[in-house]
Amino acid sequence: MSLAYFDNAATSFPKPVDFYSETMKMFQEFGVNGSRGHHHLADNMLQHANVLRKNLAIIFGVTPEKIIFSASATLAANQIIQGLDFSTIKNVYISPFEHNATYRTIWAMQQKYGFALNILPFERFSWDESKTSFLFANAEPDVVICTHASNVFGNILPVEKIFAEAKMYNAVTILDSAQTAGTIPVIATDLNADFVIWAGHKGLYGPSGIGGFVINTSYCLQPVILGGTGIFSEEDEMPEAIPERFEVGSMNSLNILGLLVATNWLLKNGDVITKKKTEMTQALFEVLSGYSDFCTIISDELPNNAGVISIVPLTMSPAELDTYLAQNGICVRSGLHCAPLAHKQMKTAPEGTVRFSVGCFNTDKEIKYLSHILEDLQ
Amino acid sequence: MSLAYFDNAATSFPKPVDFYSETMKMFQEFGVNGSRGHHHLADNMLQHANVLRKNLAIIFGVTPEKIIFSASATLAANQIIQGLDFSTIKNVYISPFEHNATYRTIWAMQQKYGFALNILPFERFSWDESKTSFLFANAEPDVVICTHASNVFGNILPVEKIFAEAKMYNAVTILDSAQTAGTIPVIATDLNADFVIWAGHKGLYGPSGIGGFVINTSYCLQPVILGGTGIFSEEDEMPEAIPERFEVGSMNSLNILGLLVATNWLLKNGDVITKKKTEMTQALFEVLSGYSDFCTIISDELPNNAGVISIVPLTMSPAELDTYLAQNGICVRSGLHCAPLAHKQMKTAPEGTVRFSVGCFNTDKEIKYLSHILEDLQ
Repeated sequence: MSLAYFDNAATSFPKPVDFYSETMKMFQEFGVNGSRGHHHLADNMLQHANVLRKNLAIIFGVTPEKIIFSASATLAANQIIQGLDFSTIKNVYISPFEHNATYRTIWAMQQKYGFALNILPFERFSWDESKTSFLFANAEPDVVICTHASNVFGNILPVEKIFAEAKMYNAVTILDSAQTAGTIPVIATDLNADFVIWAGHKGLYGPSGIGGFVINTSYCLQPVILGGTGIFSEEDEMPEAIPERFEVGSMNSLNILGLLVATNWLLKNGDVITKKKTEMTQALFEVLSGYSDFCTIISDELPNNAGVISIVPLTMSPAELDTYLAQNGICVRSGLHCAPLAHKQMKTAPEGTVRFSVGCFNTDKEIKYLSHILEDLQ
Repeated sequence: MSLAYFDNAATSFPKPVDFYSETMKMFQEFGVNGSRGHHHLADNMLQHANVLRKNLAIIFGVTPEKIIFSASATLAANQIIQGLDFSTIKNVYISPFEHNATYRTIWAMQQKYGFALNILPFERFSWDESKTSFLFANAEPDVVICTHASNVFGNILPVEKIFAEAKMYNAVTILDSAQTAGTIPVIATDLNADFVIWAGHKGLYGPSGIGGFVINTSYCLQPVILGGTGIFSEEDEMPEAIPERFEVGSMNSLNILGLLVATNWLLKNGDVITKKKTEMTQALFEVLSGYSDFCTIISDELPNNAGVISIVPLTMSPAELDTYLAQNGICVRSGLHCAPLAHKQMKTAPEGTVRFSVGCFNTDKEIKYLSHILEDLQ
């Protein structure tokens, strides 16, 4: 059976070939806890972690100490959102395309602290700027949370403009770049973002189990996860110094080395990777457009797409189509994709969609194979 | 320069030889997000994660669904401690050997909720049972947190008895097995532990970046980290089902595969591993005892030792000895080891100790080399 992997929005697969050959080689040589101890193995590990920090600093346009390593984008979202000082927060705005990583977290805070939780006005994929201006003027934003691209539909949100509007009220702006970092530029300052959540295992082509956030503000978050930091161990409270304040416990060494190899590759080949991913997205759109009797494409076309195409099948449920495709070696994902708000916005709840998501390692052969399998369903 | 690695309490190094050869092979074959999607790559990953759950269930004597994967022992400690319902908690007891992963977390909760935070009475390494009975009778314990062995001194705490006493008052009992799991038996029920925190990268010989906890009680923790779980995505609140309630975000695939390889090896070779580690601990004690003019051994001898020996040098500071050893290829760790309470208890604060910690891959050659290097210091 042939294999076609269109589940890159869940995790990119495969990883760059260097990833497999280099990561474990380094881990075998010096894969210890680099944040503790002074011996040469620990030093070596720490130096490699610092190179990763520099790579990510280039990707997000900040200085390296503003890069915080965490275990996932989800944990990073919790560290930022739960770390806010809610005593002065009255109005929080979120996009209608938020993933549950940000949505459930801010919802829980709303239940606890009672601020107003508002959804930014969008007409399908289009942000309503004037309505937002009106809403902001009437209920001034304290915090604005916005995904850079929907994990369900791939549409890219105009975060630069949304956050610029929010900054007129000195709101704290939080960007979720899980679906975009590595795929489109995510320069924190250009996007007016105070905090940027990132995932290591999607467009950055590293392993899952590593994510984090970028601090592009002087706003002082409270630490959400407490524990040992290797510095000021005698203090009851967490240290002020970053990144230590937010990087508790032993270093995530294997995943750090994996993401280091991946980002080295990404920084070297960025243009080729972007071009290839765009081509594959376009090719996938063309194939799926050929089956309009069988399915409706919900996603917006390029350039307003970060490589994710959601469809609604007309003659079967999303879960049934998913199962049929899986039986034929085609990897997609169906359902709500942990983003119920996005489906509500696009009227694809409660059954959801079938999501095809591409990576730079997809091939014309996979696209043709998909076409062949869909042909059989007609 | 020769190398001798005595920093296994920070992270075991090297890992079993299978770890390096097998982990990346599987990740290359099916290293996707196993908790999402229904295609055969995701199924394959999920099945392997379930085998790891079964392996850990054997190690901790529970059923597999009671094993919760997290990113580290520190995050697990936060998920348990911050997840408690503090509205009814008046008295919390902790051991004097707690690591900052548990200590800073419960301390922060104390600052927030104002319960009494008490330290269990110990005379050096000896638990004072009668004094504890007296204290418990006067201020009934609601929660008791205890490390299984000190990460600084290696002494094994009589948690079975301490928790039995605590259970007379129906206290919630939380065991930190970061330094013991894989080294000595950690059967949750035998130890009267409701929750067991574990680390993947020490005695379990897996990679860092994976840890978790065991639920051995019907006590319902509140989720501390919120986000997508792949089930009940349409709900604002986190699902009740475990492990999903506590396993948010994408699967930590690479580290899961690494720990799977490691625990397969551990379950197959447990007796040999334990025997070897005990032999190496004994050999290390013998070498260090030969330098009593130069250093004082603070740790208790075998069998009250899980492979960690802390010394205080008499003619130089711990940091100076650490540096000297590191320059000669000997990997140890000096200072407070993120456990200030333990140093306070053993009167080794504020400078701390030099910690030598063994693993089953230490060799007689390394012990001899250490002896040779210490000889030069005399």
